[in-house]
Amino acid sequence: MEWFLEKLNMAQHIKNQIAYKEKLHEETSPYQHIAIYETTGFGRMLTLDDVVMCTEKDEHGYHEMIAHVPMLAHKNPENVLVIGGGDGGTVREIVRHQALQKVVMCEIDEKVVEVARKFLPTMANQLNHPKVELVFQDGFAWVKSRKNEYDVIIVDSSDPVGPAEVLFKEEFIKSCYEALKDDGILVNQAENMMMFSDVIVELLSYGRKYFPLAYYYNTLVPTYPGGFIGFTFFSKKYDPFENLDLRISQENIESWDLQYYTKEMHRASFVLPKKVQQILQTPKVSLK
Amino acid sequence: MEWFLEKLNMAQHIKNQIAYKEKLHEETSPYQHIAIYETTGFGRMLTLDDVVMCTEKDEHGYHEMIAHVPMLAHKNPENVLVIGGGDGGTVREIVRHQALQKVVMCEIDEKVVEVARKFLPTMANQLNHPKVELVFQDGFAWVKSRKNEYDVIIVDSSDPVGPAEVLFKEEFIKSCYEALKDDGILVNQAENMMMFSDVIVELLSYGRKYFPLAYYYNTLVPTYPGGFIGFTFFSKKYDPFENLDLRISQENIESWDLQYYTKEMHRASFVLPKKVQQILQTPKVSLK
Repeated sequence: MEWFLEKLNMAQHIKNQIAYKEKLHEETSPYQHIAIYETTGFGRMLTLDDVVMCTEKDEHGYHEMIAHVPMLAHKNPENVLVIGGGDGGTVREIVRHQALQKVVMCEIDEKVVEVARKFLPTMANQLNHPKVELVFQDGFAWVKSRKNEYDVIIVDSSDPVGPAEVLFKEEFIKSCYEALKDDGILVNQAENMMMFSDVIVELLSYGRKYFPLAYYYNTLVPTYPGGFIGFTFFSKKYDPFENLDLRISQENIESWDLQYYTKEMHRASFVLPKKVQQILQTPKVSLK
Repeated sequence: MEWFLEKLNMAQHIKNQIAYKEKLHEETSPYQHIAIYETTGFGRMLTLDDVVMCTEKDEHGYHEMIAHVPMLAHKNPENVLVIGGGDGGTVREIVRHQALQKVVMCEIDEKVVEVARKFLPTMANQLNHPKVELVFQDGFAWVKSRKNEYDVIIVDSSDPVGPAEVLFKEEFIKSCYEALKDDGILVNQAENMMMFSDVIVELLSYGRKYFPLAYYYNTLVPTYPGGFIGFTFFSKKYDPFENLDLRISQENIESWDLQYYTKEMHRASFVLPKKVQQILQTPKVSLK
């Protein structure tokens, strides 16, 4: 048994060590170093530039929540864009929705998808689905070229250091706004709320310039530094809950083989610790 | 800057490294090795046998949730027992309650309290409160000697390896049941639900033998392995929510200087990931 030691990246004060039996693969693409480990406790693990992206055991909290929250908040999510998401887990969740007509996944690094297809079949297994179109190019360029086209855009990115840095800038948020239809929803991977609230405050400030509704929600991923991560939720029309009962009944989600998402978790994930909520200034969600 | 490397304890597959500027103190008591670090990102940190107990920056999620959930679920929590809790953070939260008449804190290791008083004043600052009685002895022996005495018992323990092992056994749960009044509530530190569900399932099985109501709830602590931790909630009479509105209005919690707990977080913390809820078989909490 050996220990994978995460590189210092976003988290300067804490880092994970994760035990593994074997390094199954590594290569360097034009964009980053890609590796796959067989861990002792979390199944297979994908790292990019020595930062944990996902493990087979705890990826569900991330992928189900990044996908189903906007897909079930929108009234009729027919056309969806995923930026990043090379492991395939987000697309796997999106194609569960009967409302979907087409999802474009725009991933800058084709090598990540190749590696995921080979080593992470439980995540990449829907990338050949007939409703999925894969595009290997810069996500920002793709978004800038589209206007009034998508119902939902999901930014399933790595941290704002390295290739994904541009995805945390105002110009990108503005371009997403323009690429969305009049009732569109934008969800972005937005870091750990107790360790990086400064990143989230900045992202929220950009979102609020364009979108009338701005929220943040949380999910649990033990193998990330800090153990949890969250998403900004920017919306032109729908709040995160108003279409929820309708959409859940339309989609018959009880028949889906989910590990994390439930209707109750959808609501609960928007409830933030008191101090975090004060810092982020997001709407207080009432629960009864 | 140096890195504190957590000893393998409960978590066999993942461990934290936490950056620190200086080790401020260390000593070996009859029970364990005690150390205080000045970390770079989380304020001061207490470790026992090289396992993180708490840091100044992220202790609030733990202490506010272990204390206020049972204290606000109970209709009139006058007499309270804390087992463990040597850093003082749990007692600091309990004495906020006007309903309280007396809290006994039974900590096996007097040296932990000494160290907390000296190095962790923001946690230990209520240990001299007139409603607090400190007892330095074995918590199990104390509980066994009491019958029908407490409204709330809180087991603020370390992991079930080392001195706290007995606190995860059926005999201890049974003794807590007997030490509680007819409407008493027992809350136990109960590990990470995504990494140690086997420990929780066992603890729940003991609790269900005696208590009609058994729940589990979660809180966020980035410096613990996995980043979050939870508590079992065993109750003779009250569910976690039925007295909540009444108690919150009685206690005027808006005037408390809290960082984590809110009424909404109280409810949301009982919402578990779908698979965890299926494994633990705890009641499904409905939220609207």
